[in-house]
Amino acid sequence: MQDVEALWADFATPIKTADDYINSLRGRRMNVFFMGERVPEPVDHPVIRPSINAMAETFRVATERPNFATVHSGISDRQINRFLHVPVSPAELVAKHEMQRELGRRTGTCFQRCVGLDAIGTCHSVTFDIDAKNGTDYHRRFLAFLKRAQAANVVIGGAMTDPKGDRSKAPHQQKDIDLFLHVTKRDDKGIYVSGAKMHQTGAVNSHWLIVMPTMRMTEADRDWSVVGAVRVDAPGLTYIVGRQTNDTRIVDGGAMDAGNAQFAGQESLIVFENVFVPHAHVFMDGEWEYATSLVERFTTYHRSSYVCKTGLGDVLIGAAASAAEHNGVEAASHIKDKLVEMTHLNETIYSSCMAGAHQSKPVASGAYINDEMLSNVAKHNVTRFPFEIARLAQDIAGGLVVTMPSEKDLQNNEIGPLIRKFLQGRDGVDVTDRMRILRLIENMTIGRNAVGYLTESLHGAGSPQAQRIQIARGMKLDEKKARARHLAGVAQSHTGSK
Amino acid sequence: MQDVEALWADFATPIKTADDYINSLRGRRMNVFFMGERVPEPVDHPVIRPSINAMAETFRVATERPNFATVHSGISDRQINRFLHVPVSPAELVAKHEMQRELGRRTGTCFQRCVGLDAIGTCHSVTFDIDAKNGTDYHRRFLAFLKRAQAANVVIGGAMTDPKGDRSKAPHQQKDIDLFLHVTKRDDKGIYVSGAKMHQTGAVNSHWLIVMPTMRMTEADRDWSVVGAVRVDAPGLTYIVGRQTNDTRIVDGGAMDAGNAQFAGQESLIVFENVFVPHAHVFMDGEWEYATSLVERFTTYHRSSYVCKTGLGDVLIGAAASAAEHNGVEAASHIKDKLVEMTHLNETIYSSCMAGAHQSKPVASGAYINDEMLSNVAKHNVTRFPFEIARLAQDIAGGLVVTMPSEKDLQNNEIGPLIRKFLQGRDGVDVTDRMRILRLIENMTIGRNAVGYLTESLHGAGSPQAQRIQIARGMKLDEKKARARHLAGVAQSHTGSK
Amino acid sequence: MQDVEALWADFATPIKTADDYINSLRGRRMNVFFMGERVPEPVDHPVIRPSINAMAETFRVATERPNFATVHSGISDRQINRFLHVPVSPAELVAKHEMQRELGRRTGTCFQRCVGLDAIGTCHSVTFDIDAKNGTDYHRRFLAFLKRAQAANVVIGGAMTDPKGDRSKAPHQQKDIDLFLHVTKRDDKGIYVSGAKMHQTGAVNSHWLIVMPTMRMTEADRDWSVVGAVRVDAPGLTYIVGRQTNDTRIVDGGAMDAGNAQFAGQESLIVFENVFVPHAHVFMDGEWEYATSLVERFTTYHRSSYVCKTGLGDVLIGAAASAAEHNGVEAASHIKDKLVEMTHLNETIYSSCMAGAHQSKPVASGAYINDEMLSNVAKHNVTRFPFEIARLAQDIAGGLVVTMPSEKDLQNNEIGPLIRKFLQGRDGVDVTDRMRILRLIENMTIGRNAVGYLTESLHGAGSPQAQRIQIARGMKLDEKKARARHLAGVAQSHTGSK
Amino acid sequence: MQDVEALWADFATPIKTADDYINSLRGRRMNVFFMGERVPEPVDHPVIRPSINAMAETFRVATERPNFATVHSGISDRQINRFLHVPVSPAELVAKHEMQRELGRRTGTCFQRCVGLDAIGTCHSVTFDIDAKNGTDYHRRFLAFLKRAQAANVVIGGAMTDPKGDRSKAPHQQKDIDLFLHVTKRDDKGIYVSGAKMHQTGAVNSHWLIVMPTMRMTEADRDWSVVGAVRVDAPGLTYIVGRQTNDTRIVDGGAMDAGNAQFAGQESLIVFENVFVPHAHVFMDGEWEYATSLVERFTTYHRSSYVCKTGLGDVLIGAAASAAEHNGVEAASHIKDKLVEMTHLNETIYSSCMAGAHQSKPVASGAYINDEMLSNVAKHNVTRFPFEIARLAQDIAGGLVVTMPSEKDLQNNEIGPLIRKFLQGRDGVDVTDRMRILRLIENMTIGRNAVGYLTESLHGAGSPQAQRIQIARGMKLDEKKARARHLAGVAQSHTGSK
Repeated sequence: MQDVEALWADFATPIKTADDYINSLRGRRMNVFFMGERVPEPVDHPVIRPSINAMAETFRVATERPNFATVHSGISDRQINRFLHVPVSPAELVAKHEMQRELGRRTGTCFQRCVGLDAIGTCHSVTFDIDAKNGTDYHRRFLAFLKRAQAANVVIGGAMTDPKGDRSKAPHQQKDIDLFLHVTKRDDKGIYVSGAKMHQTGAVNSHWLIVMPTMRMTEADRDWSVVGAVRVDAPGLTYIVGRQTNDTRIVDGGAMDAGNAQFAGQESLIVFENVFVPHAHVFMDGEWEYATSLVERFTTYHRSSYVCKTGLGDVLIGAAASAAEHNGVEAASHIKDKLVEMTHLNETIYSSCMAGAHQSKPVASGAYINDEMLSNVAKHNVTRFPFEIARLAQDIAGGLVVTMPSEKDLQNNEIGPLIRKFLQGRDGVDVTDRMRILRLIENMTIGRNAVGYLTESLHGAGSPQAQRIQIARGMKLDEKKARARHLAGVAQSHTGSK
Repeated sequence: MQDVEALWADFATPIKTADDYINSLRGRRMNVFFMGERVPEPVDHPVIRPSINAMAETFRVATERPNFATVHSGISDRQINRFLHVPVSPAELVAKHEMQRELGRRTGTCFQRCVGLDAIGTCHSVTFDIDAKNGTDYHRRFLAFLKRAQAANVVIGGAMTDPKGDRSKAPHQQKDIDLFLHVTKRDDKGIYVSGAKMHQTGAVNSHWLIVMPTMRMTEADRDWSVVGAVRVDAPGLTYIVGRQTNDTRIVDGGAMDAGNAQFAGQESLIVFENVFVPHAHVFMDGEWEYATSLVERFTTYHRSSYVCKTGLGDVLIGAAASAAEHNGVEAASHIKDKLVEMTHLNETIYSSCMAGAHQSKPVASGAYINDEMLSNVAKHNVTRFPFEIARLAQDIAGGLVVTMPSEKDLQNNEIGPLIRKFLQGRDGVDVTDRMRILRLIENMTIGRNAVGYLTESLHGAGSPQAQRIQIARGMKLDEKKARARHLAGVAQSHTGSK
Repeated sequence: MQDVEALWADFATPIKTADDYINSLRGRRMNVFFMGERVPEPVDHPVIRPSINAMAETFRVATERPNFATVHSGISDRQINRFLHVPVSPAELVAKHEMQRELGRRTGTCFQRCVGLDAIGTCHSVTFDIDAKNGTDYHRRFLAFLKRAQAANVVIGGAMTDPKGDRSKAPHQQKDIDLFLHVTKRDDKGIYVSGAKMHQTGAVNSHWLIVMPTMRMTEADRDWSVVGAVRVDAPGLTYIVGRQTNDTRIVDGGAMDAGNAQFAGQESLIVFENVFVPHAHVFMDGEWEYATSLVERFTTYHRSSYVCKTGLGDVLIGAAASAAEHNGVEAASHIKDKLVEMTHLNETIYSSCMAGAHQSKPVASGAYINDEMLSNVAKHNVTRFPFEIARLAQDIAGGLVVTMPSEKDLQNNEIGPLIRKFLQGRDGVDVTDRMRILRLIENMTIGRNAVGYLTESLHGAGSPQAQRIQIARGMKLDEKKARARHLAGVAQSHTGSK
Repeated sequence: MQDVEALWADFATPIKTADDYINSLRGRRMNVFFMGERVPEPVDHPVIRPSINAMAETFRVATERPNFATVHSGISDRQINRFLHVPVSPAELVAKHEMQRELGRRTGTCFQRCVGLDAIGTCHSVTFDIDAKNGTDYHRRFLAFLKRAQAANVVIGGAMTDPKGDRSKAPHQQKDIDLFLHVTKRDDKGIYVSGAKMHQTGAVNSHWLIVMPTMRMTEADRDWSVVGAVRVDAPGLTYIVGRQTNDTRIVDGGAMDAGNAQFAGQESLIVFENVFVPHAHVFMDGEWEYATSLVERFTTYHRSSYVCKTGLGDVLIGAAASAAEHNGVEAASHIKDKLVEMTHLNETIYSSCMAGAHQSKPVASGAYINDEMLSNVAKHNVTRFPFEIARLAQDIAGGLVVTMPSEKDLQNNEIGPLIRKFLQGRDGVDVTDRMRILRLIENMTIGRNAVGYLTESLHGAGSPQAQRIQIARGMKLDEKKARARHLAGVAQSHTGSK
């Protein structure tokens, strides 16, 4: 266990504040690439920094509103950041979702800490189940890991999505076995894993990663059925930060043009090359039968976590209302009606997420998991409504949202005054404020944070079809058919189903 | 109080079973009209009876599943039917909604007892508030009334919607002052009211009616600001039962053609001509300032009660799945996809209703009321999704749903065999069963119970625009604008709003 | 050919007026059943008569507006009713669609003469193609038949939809070979056919029927590959008229309750038992290879014929606007907005239909056929938008549309005055007029003519999935992919497609 | 007229090819700004150049397919580029729309030449009408101008949208009279105009601009009621090119990251400071009564011109189909169904646009104008369906579309091979090709050309509410109400309307 102590040595001083968190990221030796170049210090990289700021808000909210964003953990018997907590009641899932919406409002983007949170909840119950069946030691290991993490207040990232290669083939059938992350070697100290994880949210901004299988496994996929925790700076890890629409505008245009200069999301491709995981941090190794329930529990948690998008929705509704005010049209009935529609859609998403939290049920480990049907329904609404909310926001904002001069034009002595003259809206509205609000709308509907508000809403935690498959599984057609037959006066089923 | 005792004398023996309930309706002297004729005994009227059957299910579910549909009342300190209970916790509102969905599944129609239930909850808190302010005695009176009702297990109808006449005028401004129900006389025994209530659900099937104002009142509308309870057979009352699409098919076509022969809804126009209300049953008389909160609380309760439509949705999804099975196409991907979509929409409604129940809050009287925003959002979804679910059900069912021969054709010796020959579907499916399921789909999408599933879903508890107005009131634009300004880097509001 | 002369003898005097048409239907010996009883004279049956009235409008429009609804035929070299004309230019298809919309406006229902019209167009070109390939005589026969029909101005019904039985099997594989209509015998005078046709629009109101195969045939299905014309009163034919929602209200409630007392649609199951077709009226017998093009051409014509629903949409928009006016809310912005939305959807359908007519192309016979892609797109919109238009109409109408007393209540001395008192709307609006408009809305959205406006819009001329299959066939993905590759800078396809 | 000759001297050699066109833009002295800096030569500016390339395609298509993109003009009696032609038949409007769709397919963006085309058509008829009424000389002037333009084959931009300032005030009531472009001086040579035009499509890439009023004028707005043509390099003009999402990616990322490296749109703010217009180029000066019909005719033309977006839709459908193929999921039923839905929506837009062209009508000058209702309906569909098509494209593409490494990462020796290893899709698909297609989808749905495909589809040629106002004006409610009354049996209108 000495090794494990060493791995945790850097985290001896708990992270308390947002500043602590940002400092904790400095000086790490990580292989991070962006746009073809190695990034020596991500904290100072202007394109990456906004994503770190967003993550930092998960710390800030906890210091500013401890009753809201911290909770007592029975595992470590201390008050901890809610992002490190395994929910053990519906009320805690409800509180989690309220916190997620609030962080959506604070950042207007993806604050990246939910994947790890949902990974924790999932591992808690799956390790419990494996041990109960097999007499293994995973749950105790996991609790020990989590206790340390809670004490240190670190950021845990969850890494699930493998590249998958040929989707008609199982992991062990792939031409290139690395297309799913797998164990390459085992020794008395631990295991070694290779492969890659795609679309990894906030990975560079994390301290630890929990790797998990991405789908159902078969017996032949034992080596691919692995769960474990590694430090993000473990040898053998490489991060390639993905490009986002408009990501460099913060560099070439400045804060105003960026729209939301302070906050953004982040997703990377992470490559694993024989990355070592000490036994203490291995939470599944070969128990392929549990891959399905792990994935289902994770997605059930995580689909509801998309309640955060209602926080972004709040911001976008507010921005649209401000733009209408700047244009002097906030009293027009069609404008008010569009704001109502946006709110209605946003609150419909919220209600689906919250209903699933309130109706969560415990599993054997004592952890509570959102209602599966409602969580899928919630996420499925997330794959639709933000697109309509964004369309309505652009409708209200007007065409200027995509034809506007840049901040640098405004600063130019020759044309700056012309812009100020011709872009004046309603009396008393500062032109730069009008432009800032429009840039925010651009940012969220067609710019950098549209990545999180729109595309990620489609694909994060599973694409629309994944939810439809789960809804199909849970829709209890036999019961429904029996009800119909009863009312129609049909004596019994003719086709074998009840 | 002697009068009041007399009024309750008929209810000395509590109603226990569905049969008790049906018997309790017999032999009353009521002025009931349908299709231009006086109905001597509604219980035996073939068109009205299905609506009585539906109401009777609210008693049957309580005897069959007492843990589910009865609850302990602190008011009468006894176990009562949940339809007579004032909810005093979120869990009780949740249980109410589960019961409503189940009754939707059992009947495939409107079972009519929710209006009274939601009237009770509303009166509980509004009388409490009036008394607290004015030192009146309404709350005690109401509790006494409710205690008797709970003991007797009677059906209470809620009567809210006035004819309204010229909608641009207040009640006292109408040419005909009867266009809003109002007090015509007061004496030492009680008050007398005249006017009418429209679209009254299940009124003929009730024992008592609580009249309530339908909208905001002004000081000049004191006489119109009245709440009270009357027996449905009180002198001066006339009921004109409305026609429903296909209502007489049960008479001309038989059970199969009816689609759902056993259950239907019912709505009447009730005319009040100097109907007496003893003081003990007067719960508001002139306190016009409370009309608004009464209406808002009632609609907040009642909009969430439309969760019942998800029970109808369950039946319709089941019917569509059965029809697909009968046609041998249940495995076609587009059929499965449509069933998933129907389920997704149905569960979205459910989630909005349930979230509002879980997030209910207490008012001064101790009663819990659903979250107002979510209740409006839920009902607004009810004004949309059942229409799409119905469209998809018809899509799956095929055109036969509207071109099918009648049961009487099937019974004809000459053509019956031809129908059996040519309407055969998948092997092993009985033709009459196939026809029954299609008739049920007709019944719910374009027939008698489409009234409840579609049109009532639009207009019951307030038309779509009413919800939009409430959503607009609750959408907190100032908060949202502040969030947007913060992220956009705008220092402060320029227009006075925060 | 003597037989054929005899068959046409009854039509020696051309039908000129709507009255002529109605008289022409009297006194025929047909086996017509409705609700289990033989109908001795359909013209006098109160439930069937409105469908005859609707058909009669196709004659009335021709006498009232000859320039609009008649056209010169090159086949018979005379001015004929447009419903008997084979279109030989885009302008004629455009004129056809304008006439269909107008008849939708005049009747508010299905006027039933389009199926035969589209059958004529289809037979014109398919017989031409068969003869060109095989040297057969079908086209000349067909022209002779059509010439007589044009001269007599008879109503031709088209009969396509077979019962189909087990949908996974071809006609010749069915357990019961009658599940597809087929030739049972051939002799020197003609052929004999047995089977059935379902959902047959206006069959009882026609003079002749053209039977056609319903889908692709295989070589083994030769006997099922048959096209021919028979008189509707030919021996061996039985008609079972289907029930429609609310069909008997005209009987039990009267004109006001019916909503649209004058007009309705009609669909029957037609059974064929060894029905004789003289050679002169056989237009295909065994040429199975042409069944596919026959079906595709027919559906291409017929899907565009659903432009008639925009005429119904006009009526429903007008009714909703009237209801709003009666309620005194026609100036409310949300009401106006809903009328705009209804119009937008209605005109979108219109535009799809008209574009396909303008972009029609000739086939070998010289007949013009609508653009196939646009015709499918048009019909696919018809499967969606009328449902939303109907929902909005009900939204505007208010709940009274389903809770209203009957006309008989209005006539009752006791309650009639109460209804007049309490149902008064805006000043100066007659209560009965208000009720009539609401009954019309009921009729079209949830009553008898909702059958035509909604369900038939889904399934007539092929269910939604049928259009999707045709759209998929025509969507030219290879061309589109090539365009995408070009812009993306991808050199060539990697998967074999261009 | 000498001045005018001088103005045209530079265009003595007609532009024939795309290369000619690009060369014609070089070396002009224009005040063009982008991102705060003066752009010395827009042709060589990497961000601006793709918009020039897109415009150049309007020349290339004419040389490659002269029958398709050129037409004989009766005005100059020569074969000209269709973008300079006033349509004088429905067939020419149809051909115009086919050309616009094709250019959408060729460029995947806005090719910018339609505004000028639609301005020409509008000026043709409005000048005719003014002269007919007032005996002025505008039409002859306009024809002379157009004849020169046709001969020279120049690009004409249309400049309509004024800044508008306080939208509740008329032009002459604005605090700053420059907020609408107006005449500042008149002398014997011509007039001088000041003000600004916003969102001007392709202005920098044009040779001439026609300024037009943006809305209804009053008598007091005479000086603001001005139409005239100026060279884009006229003294007093300043162009500020607006920023577009992702516009600089072509610079920082390279061709692959740009998605569509070759083509993009362009919109500018143009400031006019006492810009001289010789009398020969003044087509309206003070005739305020004609501003309304000018705007309505222009928008009627221009709303239908949005048929170009169906060309972009073709590209996006093709890209999504390619992405599905690369992922090996092109046969999945939900993928096929989404491609069908995208096609259905795209063709619905097309059909609305084409129907309006086929049903165009001539005005007094002989020019044909699209049907106004259908043109508004078409554009209104454009404000909705591209958003859903884009959502479905992203759904099919998968999350990689927003998390993908850059081309520079691919070129890096260390991580390039990792990307190639882990981003492999279906066998035989080149990783860079897969990435290119995904970048194209990013480009069109959330990147630079989403500006044109989405936001411009909302606001170009008028925002959604503008179309709703026009639909409301044209929806003939009185006729529709009369139809409803007729069918409902209501004798006559009670409210004064027919």
